[in-house]
Amino acid sequence: MGVSADGIVATVRFDTGAQPAATMQRVVEWFQLQERRLEQNLTALGVASFGPLDLTSGTITRTPKAGWDMTPLRQELARGLGCPVAVNTDVNCSALAEHALGAGVGCDVFLYLTVGTGIGAGAVVSGELVYGKGHPEMGHMRIPQQRDDSFAGSCPFHGNCWEGLASGQALASRYLMQPADLVDPRAWELEVEYLALGVTNLICSFRPQRIALGGGVFRREGLLREVAERVSGLLTADYFAEAHEIAEILVTPDLGSSGVVGALLIAEQLTIAPTR
Amino acid sequence: MGVSADGIVATVRFDTGAQPAATMQRVVEWFQLQERRLEQNLTALGVASFGPLDLTSGTITRTPKAGWDMTPLRQELARGLGCPVAVNTDVNCSALAEHALGAGVGCDVFLYLTVGTGIGAGAVVSGELVYGKGHPEMGHMRIPQQRDDSFAGSCPFHGNCWEGLASGQALASRYLMQPADLVDPRAWELEVEYLALGVTNLICSFRPQRIALGGGVFRREGLLREVAERVSGLLTADYFAEAHEIAEILVTPDLGSSGVVGALLIAEQLTIAPTR
Repeated sequence: MGVSADGIVATVRFDTGAQPAATMQRVVEWFQLQERRLEQNLTALGVASFGPLDLTSGTITRTPKAGWDMTPLRQELARGLGCPVAVNTDVNCSALAEHALGAGVGCDVFLYLTVGTGIGAGAVVSGELVYGKGHPEMGHMRIPQQRDDSFAGSCPFHGNCWEGLASGQALASRYLMQPADLVDPRAWELEVEYLALGVTNLICSFRPQRIALGGGVFRREGLLREVAERVSGLLTADYFAEAHEIAEILVTPDLGSSGVVGALLIAEQLTIAPTR
Repeated sequence: MGVSADGIVATVRFDTGAQPAATMQRVVEWFQLQERRLEQNLTALGVASFGPLDLTSGTITRTPKAGWDMTPLRQELARGLGCPVAVNTDVNCSALAEHALGAGVGCDVFLYLTVGTGIGAGAVVSGELVYGKGHPEMGHMRIPQQRDDSFAGSCPFHGNCWEGLASGQALASRYLMQPADLVDPRAWELEVEYLALGVTNLICSFRPQRIALGGGVFRREGLLREVAERVSGLLTADYFAEAHEIAEILVTPDLGSSGVVGALLIAEQLTIAPTR
């Protein structure tokens, strides 16, 4: 396998904005410029996209992101660039990359979880992304809200689902400041509780050997350790043999740009002929 | 594949009791009797057991079932019978069987859920049982409890986890009668809510094409349909494209004795030489 973050020869960053057609035109033009500059045609393109996505058609489905509802991402990029295009969610790409090259190497069951503006996760089981009726939407599970917490939640679809209670957007809506500026220890105690409840549910459901927890909210010093301690308490050492090993299960991602590496991996898969 | 419920030539039922050694002796003697009667030696034994199990050693781990804590099930049966023994949880065996021959045929992601005395589930992804740090313990996830519900829950480990709020044992502890005798419509409304919350979390986590829901509690006429309607509401049709198709995802198990068929399947796997 040739994919690694070291093989990246050029990077650029655009805001996605509210005009998918214009944004995709910029993407296509940028890649055409690289083709001329490197005197090489694109073999394949991998896209690690925000979701939700229909992976069969490579289309963004229902999204609150202004303008992007029902955008046929794969179709338009393939038409513009004239090469095969693989599309998956950003968290699925990160999960694939961390499993292949980072924190999840060797795990039969591995999860990548990000807590940023929203909460998203991807699961790799026996080397394959879990994908059934659609891709996982783990951020929208329901967790117990504290009885004295009357916050309605920030999720536009479900109110006080996990993402609605514990994402960066939830913190921003509740405390009217960015997570990085939030210092009230009671606010973080509640955040630890809600993060731990969701992680507990993922452990009960998947029994992963490892979960890599990334995203802006986890940049807070000590948060991962506090969440791990609370998860141990919720699982109870008596019942789950591994409760005392939670600190080994809950880890920081290894790769600096797992989404990009994962996009390269799904592009590479397009170029390998099936072996059976 | 030769396994089917039609191939069963003899059955017997013992209570497990509180004496694992005596129970396993009875099991061994019964199989030895069959060997003499059929003039054929056992090739392999498959065991669909209550859990929790350590599948590496085939040992029952920490269980509230009196006397069975840390019983080396596989080792003792293999010694007594002199043949290879495969052990898995009852729900994992049911999940395998329903996936191979029943309600889950053809699903990339399939769950088997039973709501009886406890709540247990097995997951099959890409044809393999999900097994990482251990087997899933989906019944022990946490779900939101109604604010006006002060029931402490019946789970000896976690109190008001999903199993502690919604299992047959939870109903029996709360209403002091068996689920079959419970008629109060408000009691069943609450049960529908709690079952639907857990099923919603499983759908968010795995996005299965199908979940087969069995066990004593689901013998109640109409319960599965009511749970499906509530799950649709919780997922919101707007966000999850399949919300209107929940009735196709949540189905009744197909096989009458999926645990036994699954035990035959894991025994059969022991007798097939690995192909690579």
